[in-house]
Amino acid sequence: MKIARFRSGSRTAHGVVFDDEVAEIRGSIYTSFRITDTRHPLSEVRFLPPTDPGELWGPGLNFVDHLEYAGSVFGQDAMPVPEKPQPWRKGRNALTGVNDPIIIPKDTAGEVHYEGEAVAVIGKVCRRISVERASHYILGYTCGNDVSERSWQKDDWTFWRAKGADTFAPVGPWIETEVDPQQLDLLVRINGEEVQRCNTSDMLFSFAEIVSYISQQVTLKPGDLVFSGATGVTRAITPGDVVEVDIPGVGVLSNPVIAEFEAGQGK
Amino acid sequence: MKIARFRSGSRTAHGVVFDDEVAEIRGSIYTSFRITDTRHPLSEVRFLPPTDPGELWGPGLNFVDHLEYAGSVFGQDAMPVPEKPQPWRKGRNALTGVNDPIIIPKDTAGEVHYEGEAVAVIGKVCRRISVERASHYILGYTCGNDVSERSWQKDDWTFWRAKGADTFAPVGPWIETEVDPQQLDLLVRINGEEVQRCNTSDMLFSFAEIVSYISQQVTLKPGDLVFSGATGVTRAITPGDVVEVDIPGVGVLSNPVIAEFEAGQGK
Repeated sequence: MKIARFRSGSRTAHGVVFDDEVAEIRGSIYTSFRITDTRHPLSEVRFLPPTDPGELWGPGLNFVDHLEYAGSVFGQDAMPVPEKPQPWRKGRNALTGVNDPIIIPKDTAGEVHYEGEAVAVIGKVCRRISVERASHYILGYTCGNDVSERSWQKDDWTFWRAKGADTFAPVGPWIETEVDPQQLDLLVRINGEEVQRCNTSDMLFSFAEIVSYISQQVTLKPGDLVFSGATGVTRAITPGDVVEVDIPGVGVLSNPVIAEFEAGQGK
Repeated sequence: MKIARFRSGSRTAHGVVFDDEVAEIRGSIYTSFRITDTRHPLSEVRFLPPTDPGELWGPGLNFVDHLEYAGSVFGQDAMPVPEKPQPWRKGRNALTGVNDPIIIPKDTAGEVHYEGEAVAVIGKVCRRISVERASHYILGYTCGNDVSERSWQKDDWTFWRAKGADTFAPVGPWIETEVDPQQLDLLVRINGEEVQRCNTSDMLFSFAEIVSYISQQVTLKPGDLVFSGATGVTRAITPGDVVEVDIPGVGVLSNPVIAEFEAGQGK
């Protein structure tokens, strides 16, 4: 089942996607709901990030084929294979939805990169849960782009702006509740050209392991988002590009790239 | 004026504190409100964290007399004097209020320390504001405790649990709107014994400078919290302690320290 959050006119609602329609629901996507007869063609709604998360989490380095590149970002040799997740908080301010623009800040040196990832959506309050139980606390999976400014990533002590500037966290288009999260193909295209292809079976730490690990010290709440981590080598995106994160069986997260204007954000 | 958020019976409200009473308000603390005739004795309400922040920010190292100690936490020499703020995100899950317990996780090695700080409360949406304009976007100031587990701070790549575990961010008791934020005495007492005394005039970066700096890449929103950074050398707190962060002219943030029980949190 594909659960979406969308705006129709001035209203915001959750719904279930069927082919070319979305049917509004009554109730909570986290507890129980029923599907209503109110349906909208997909072309007539604006999809929002599928939840309003309290926190967005990255797992730290989570794919072996990203270790050498990650080291080079810091001007170092390949990073060592991590022995545990190294979670970090991505900014809520950065969250944006499918088809919304990724805005390149006017004071960057052109080093804004995509990172196509799968994202787990927490469905229940969880604290000190085991790896074995973790899947019961995950509602489903969506697509995410961990947009990253490489020069800030190198220069700053934290990822606060390198991965946390406004619009640096596109997530969507919806939550798929019936997939095997460790068998997902993960593709990125820039202007239609494939620039990344991997599979979540290569994650060093599974979603269940990451969620369990974070929950040992942090209460995770419904709607919180946990990214998979990035793979391979990335490249810069520039105004005019369209970036697509495609997870077959889940959906396609497409975002145009624009430049920040002197007078403010957006057009 | 002292603006508080509190619970009375099953209701949550904002109010203005007068001597030994709090008067409920109608309206928004961020735009405009009026004071009503509904008053409660302070002893009969439970104070909550004064806002529901979208983000909690630390500034990085911000007092010269903390540099040597901060280095020692990482097993290094004194940290260099930072040339810019190095912001980081403290966990929203960690937020807790005055008189609520700081819970020592059962899997720490006893290295949970206090850090008494002043905290700016954002009052308006701000993005790319100047240092000169920043004070117009700050509603007021409160007390905060940047509780920190030193062994995790050393072992992890990020502060996700060292400064972000549940209950590691006590904030309160209320927002004082009429103080000079760079002339605040800042005292910490453990069980009545003074263990920290400093003044916000010694901050390397003022609140206005930190808020302006973060706002260059991040949209700050009403209720967001910006900590001052810590001073000096700290020491561990243990179950049974009471920690007070006292900012004369603002208020006293008092929290008992308890141990996490095997079966879950709290009593």
